[in-house]
Amino acid sequence: MKIICQKINLLKSVNISLKAVPSKTTMPILECILIDATTNQIKFTTNDMELGIETIVDGTIEEKGIIALDAKIFYEIIRRLPDNTVTIKTDEKLTATITCEKAKFTIPGKSGEDFAYLPLIEKEESLTISQFTLKEMIRQTIFSIASNETNKLMTGELFEIKNNYLKIVSLDGHRIAIRRMELKKDYADRKVVVPGKTLNEISKILSGEIDDIVNIYFSKNHILFEFDQTIVVSRLIDGEYFRIDQMLSSDYETKIKINKKEFLDCIDRATLLVREGEKKPIIIEITDNSMELRIDSAMGSMNENIDIDKEGKDILIGFNPRFLIDALKVIDDETISIYLVNPKAPCFIRDDEENYTYLILPVNINQNQAR
Amino acid sequence: MKIICQKINLLKSVNISLKAVPSKTTMPILECILIDATTNQIKFTTNDMELGIETIVDGTIEEKGIIALDAKIFYEIIRRLPDNTVTIKTDEKLTATITCEKAKFTIPGKSGEDFAYLPLIEKEESLTISQFTLKEMIRQTIFSIASNETNKLMTGELFEIKNNYLKIVSLDGHRIAIRRMELKKDYADRKVVVPGKTLNEISKILSGEIDDIVNIYFSKNHILFEFDQTIVVSRLIDGEYFRIDQMLSSDYETKIKINKKEFLDCIDRATLLVREGEKKPIIIEITDNSMELRIDSAMGSMNENIDIDKEGKDILIGFNPRFLIDALKVIDDETISIYLVNPKAPCFIRDDEENYTYLILPVNINQNQAR
Repeated sequence: MKIICQKINLLKSVNISLKAVPSKTTMPILECILIDATTNQIKFTTNDMELGIETIVDGTIEEKGIIALDAKIFYEIIRRLPDNTVTIKTDEKLTATITCEKAKFTIPGKSGEDFAYLPLIEKEESLTISQFTLKEMIRQTIFSIASNETNKLMTGELFEIKNNYLKIVSLDGHRIAIRRMELKKDYADRKVVVPGKTLNEISKILSGEIDDIVNIYFSKNHILFEFDQTIVVSRLIDGEYFRIDQMLSSDYETKIKINKKEFLDCIDRATLLVREGEKKPIIIEITDNSMELRIDSAMGSMNENIDIDKEGKDILIGFNPRFLIDALKVIDDETISIYLVNPKAPCFIRDDEENYTYLILPVNINQNQAR
Repeated sequence: MKIICQKINLLKSVNISLKAVPSKTTMPILECILIDATTNQIKFTTNDMELGIETIVDGTIEEKGIIALDAKIFYEIIRRLPDNTVTIKTDEKLTATITCEKAKFTIPGKSGEDFAYLPLIEKEESLTISQFTLKEMIRQTIFSIASNETNKLMTGELFEIKNNYLKIVSLDGHRIAIRRMELKKDYADRKVVVPGKTLNEISKILSGEIDDIVNIYFSKNHILFEFDQTIVVSRLIDGEYFRIDQMLSSDYETKIKINKKEFLDCIDRATLLVREGEKKPIIIEITDNSMELRIDSAMGSMNENIDIDKEGKDILIGFNPRFLIDALKVIDDETISIYLVNPKAPCFIRDDEENYTYLILPVNINQNQAR
């Protein structure tokens, strides 16, 4: 095999490929990037058995062939080469020689025979959305998936297409994050659970440009994202996702409007008095047109008032400050609405169009902490 | 005590003070910043018993007093306050209340009675140089102090004033770094060894502006740096520094001139084939007007040629690539001169005026590796 590419193109493709290289594996071949130049295109493939990526590299094939190269070493080499034309050549002993200007690297390769190719997905109807939108919707929900594997379904996100809306949902038992967008054409209803890891990795590859699109295809066990010169295939998580509709009541006793930045800054200040790992709730006391935030810890105490617009009852309620911070950080609105029922019921942060809904369970606090 | 300061001034002073707060200590009082408003100035003091810092804070004293506050908590609070006027007030129970706009923090303080004040240094003759120069000279030498304490003197840097030159020297047994500058007026000769930690910390506080000056005072056991509104006092390291003059021969068999960036990039590329902790020398073969760099490791091999100007003999020599990289990174010249004697003798990188000299010991290599 002999291929010639520009360093910048190689680096881009290697960076994409790395996202599906497992950090630990019992199959050393999976630590490789498969460079396939057997057809008239140069194709890089990586696969960690959950997630697979295939990406086309711009370049010239001077001699057809195929080889698997250690992904990390290959990346380090490409990264440090001068910005110029790079030649990758292999011999019959599967040794790869990488040259660029006067620099010459020689590294051992593998045949790629044992390489696990990506599953073949029939590309029927695709869901087409902007890369920007997909990247944003992932960012705005991914933080509330569960980090441990006790309940596999909680480690993924629900992608639901229904009545021409795409809804992405994540939950971890303490909170729910929902983002919703209207689709531009009719799609068949569908419900799948995509692993959080897949979504994290794909977020890093998506351009984030509003004009770039991504086509999404579904099969029984897989989801396939196609964009630019890249295909990402991921297994789906098996099982029926949680019924969240019954948790999303629209009744409330208290509704407040608050400046998001003021609220966020205030919680941020309060949490500095909480040592890592320590579970200290932030206490929120809502009275007429004022919200008082308080925290007490071994390090000291803090309180602060914020002006609000309030409808309904006064309330004293406690929250894990982390959960409030996570949700507030991904909301772009300057002013937000928060709906509360009582100190033991979840609060909702949502906009009028329900493009976003964040549900957060409160923490039990001593109701005598009212001042 | 009651003082009023702008958040930005407080933050600047706290940041400076933190540099002398020990990360671990058996004396909890040393984890505090002493806020002294007993005179007509607000003064922050910190002291880790090796290094002490005193800095004046702009602000108003409404009620005189003194208190010691946990440095890390105090820093976290100040950092997150809104950009506005901050009031710090203490009561007879040594509780400090910090208020800014609507935010109010309450934290416990200490009397400061046990606080270790800075040693008093008589300010006689001072050495006055630009903050930029001091900061640069430290940066250009500090990397070659020894990281372990086996030989205490190696963990510091020699400051030598002699014949109206200031010379700063560091060495770790494998290499020597020397920077030298001419002084603008006559100073008495002097030789002291300043702890590397002191120099690292002071580097972070110095403005780095060429027009800002720093006054340096010496006592038998201490060095004192005075700049802006800050005083830094450090113990000196006891003992006589190594005699380096006898190691700095000016004889050579080979002299080359090489483009610094090309050389550095090439070594950087070569080292990617060396796993962390693995000791693989980079092999340099100098022949007429060309230098070949080679490295061989379990991961693969690399070689590259660089154009050079050469005087004298051909040579094949091996180096720890890290030592070359460290020295090359802090040299600003585009083209550098390297002087070599034989494969077992140190090489020198130095300019004609000897404003800088970097000595690096070679690594033994098999002389049959010549091609």
